[in-house]
Amino acid sequence: MASEISEITEEDPTSDRPSARARLLAAANELFYQEGVNTVGIDRVIERAGVAKATLYSAYGSKEGLIRAYLAVRHDARRHHLTEAVARHDTPREQLLDIFDSLGESISKPTYHGCAFVNATVEARPDSPIFEATDEYRAWMRALFVDLATAAGAADPDELACHLNLLYDGAGIAARLDRAQTAATAARAAAAVLIDAATAGPGTP
Amino acid sequence: MASEISEITEEDPTSDRPSARARLLAAANELFYQEGVNTVGIDRVIERAGVAKATLYSAYGSKEGLIRAYLAVRHDARRHHLTEAVARHDTPREQLLDIFDSLGESISKPTYHGCAFVNATVEARPDSPIFEATDEYRAWMRALFVDLATAAGAADPDELACHLNLLYDGAGIAARLDRAQTAATAARAAAAVLIDAATAGPGTP
Repeated sequence: MASEISEITEEDPTSDRPSARARLLAAANELFYQEGVNTVGIDRVIERAGVAKATLYSAYGSKEGLIRAYLAVRHDARRHHLTEAVARHDTPREQLLDIFDSLGESISKPTYHGCAFVNATVEARPDSPIFEATDEYRAWMRALFVDLATAAGAADPDELACHLNLLYDGAGIAARLDRAQTAATAARAAAAVLIDAATAGPGTP
Repeated sequence: MASEISEITEEDPTSDRPSARARLLAAANELFYQEGVNTVGIDRVIERAGVAKATLYSAYGSKEGLIRAYLAVRHDARRHHLTEAVARHDTPREQLLDIFDSLGESISKPTYHGCAFVNATVEARPDSPIFEATDEYRAWMRALFVDLATAAGAADPDELACHLNLLYDGAGIAARLDRAQTAATAARAAAAVLIDAATAGPGTP
């Protein structure tokens, strides 16, 4: 067990091989996302990562700790992806709509398997640390919608942000459950109607 | 084992006690919905139902067969609930909006735990019979939206139905993941904007 811990805490800077911790996270990211956090047992994750079971516990404490780390990876990836998408445009309206284009890019990938946070959370207990990771992601996502809705001049930015978030989540469900490749395009079209209605001031035609 | 099978196939019409099959389904409905189809093992279901394991297999074939039967129960309940909701109103617009009111009623219950079909399907394999049950439910739901969108005079009923379905699914996710009690009210407000935009003919103010 001592050697397992040293594998994590004492990285060899001259080695090209990813650390045990990184290999565990990569294996978790692949298996948990493709097959589900409940369906995939830790034995498969440690086998895929090529580490001993004790390494998982010393690195992440528990399976839930590893799930939380996996969700943090997904959160970072989505934040990076959406920040890039938003930066492509000048107007808040286009930036809001590009959130749906960005979702469409994800959905179109053969590896798309729905929203990692939805998938991981629907069977989580209320006191599970999985909810903490999901809350953090969803608060960040909502804040992005609110900031852009405010910049777009929405009469009620919180309300518009809420409505757009419903469409975004709904598109993820349609893509996962109905295998609807066009779900994000449909959500984008509905979002455009809602943005225009929310940003048209009184008297605007 | 013979006695287990007879317990299912030879009901005693003079008995008030629910059949083993009915008790299994009731236990599955409660446990699968509250805790998840992956998290809950069949041992807990048969213990709750008070039947032998062989009874489950003779009645439903497998755990997946029981999950499918559980989803059929949820489908019937939702169909009954929504059919009643729609019948309360005369205009297609109000009928469409009452679908969201009906969802709000479900969300407000302390036992609400999200959409049973989403919860059961996100970790299902593509060839799982769980997808069949989910496809049937979602096709029925979509047809309801299309019929009412057509009756409401939408320029493109399929598109409006798709958009309203996104909001409906999104509200279920917000209620489950964010514990957002007002998710259905928000979805209803967004739905009203989309309905009005889709049913306003050219030149209509």
